[in-house]
Amino acid sequence: MGPLPRTLELFYDVLSPYSWLSFEVLCRYQNIWNINLRLQPSLIAGIMKDSGNKPPALLPRKAQYLASDINLLRQHLQVPIQLPKDLFSVLLEKGSLSAMRFLTAVNLEHPEMLEKVSRELWMRIWSRDEDISEPQSILTAAKKAGMSAEQARGLLEKISTPTVKNKLKETTEAACKYGAFGLPVTVAHMDGQTHMLFGSDRMELLAYLLEKWMGPVPPAVNARL
Amino acid sequence: MGPLPRTLELFYDVLSPYSWLSFEVLCRYQNIWNINLRLQPSLIAGIMKDSGNKPPALLPRKAQYLASDINLLRQHLQVPIQLPKDLFSVLLEKGSLSAMRFLTAVNLEHPEMLEKVSRELWMRIWSRDEDISEPQSILTAAKKAGMSAEQARGLLEKISTPTVKNKLKETTEAACKYGAFGLPVTVAHMDGQTHMLFGSDRMELLAYLLEKWMGPVPPAVNARL
Repeated sequence: MGPLPRTLELFYDVLSPYSWLSFEVLCRYQNIWNINLRLQPSLIAGIMKDSGNKPPALLPRKAQYLASDINLLRQHLQVPIQLPKDLFSVLLEKGSLSAMRFLTAVNLEHPEMLEKVSRELWMRIWSRDEDISEPQSILTAAKKAGMSAEQARGLLEKISTPTVKNKLKETTEAACKYGAFGLPVTVAHMDGQTHMLFGSDRMELLAYLLEKWMGPVPPAVNARL
Repeated sequence: MGPLPRTLELFYDVLSPYSWLSFEVLCRYQNIWNINLRLQPSLIAGIMKDSGNKPPALLPRKAQYLASDINLLRQHLQVPIQLPKDLFSVLLEKGSLSAMRFLTAVNLEHPEMLEKVSRELWMRIWSRDEDISEPQSILTAAKKAGMSAEQARGLLEKISTPTVKNKLKETTEAACKYGAFGLPVTVAHMDGQTHMLFGSDRMELLAYLLEKWMGPVPPAVNARL
């Protein structure tokens, strides 16, 4: 028997583009590193409020940098990420409350589907500039991820229940307790220690803590692309 | 004759800990990558003012994260970086105006000394928790970097001249024109394109644009340590 897998928690919101980048790189590495990856759907708006932080895109130069940074990272990380045309409406008006409650319901009832449904929601908002706030948008993403229409509708009906609402609150509060002031947040539990890493740009550091880093597209993944 | 070296500009302030990390990694890579590294002493306070950004350490959770992040990066990057005890007095009260004017004077008159003097100032503020705002502190750093006492005093006398003041302003404005909202900022000029990268965590991306990435401590450097 080899060593026990270490647990990594990824706190994310599909509204956060850098969360998507972390998510894809960690999904690629979960077998390579022998980690137990726990996806933790959280609400970025709640984290901003609790920490007193402001969305970076509110500062014009940060919004401008986001566009060029995302453009380079798309190529380097091989994730089809793209800025939506109306960034402010998407980030500040529409938000992600229903989508993150839906993912919370998926996590509670069909955790095996969480990775795929999350990815389909990111593909909508951060690749194809499609809505994720309307019920129909969420159902379409769930279907694309492989859920039956009935299963998806059943989960969507549950997003206003106290169970789902409270679970999303609890996960968001857990991120705050780890010190989150934005997302993504990766929490590595290893050798009795807990390391909280913020952002998608601490992957090499995480690899340094865990094991070997082979770039954001490790060879085994590269061979499959 | 091989290909012409590409030019990389590093805009930095010794008040910025992540600037030090970028500086050391780029100094290690400058021969490996065949780049022409242009060190650009700038004033972070000027960039914050011009962009409307706020020092991250003002947000309690960001200050808390800075401490743990720096602690991990010190080991991974092999740079002896350490938080000063009274972070707020160092960052917000004392600042770096004289130190950055001194480095500007060094850059104008003895550019060959700029790397060493910059490093000694970082060693003071971000490794040994020593002052960099008093004339004597700056002279001591310059001497440690290999300058004669006379040479250092001569440069220190020039930090209030319009030439030095204006040059620091111009460099800071140049960073702003590239879109800076903080430091470090690395500007890569290559193949007729200009890429602006913010922070010390875009080194792998820079390597992707330029050439091969071998981690923050490339083998040739590792062998010398």
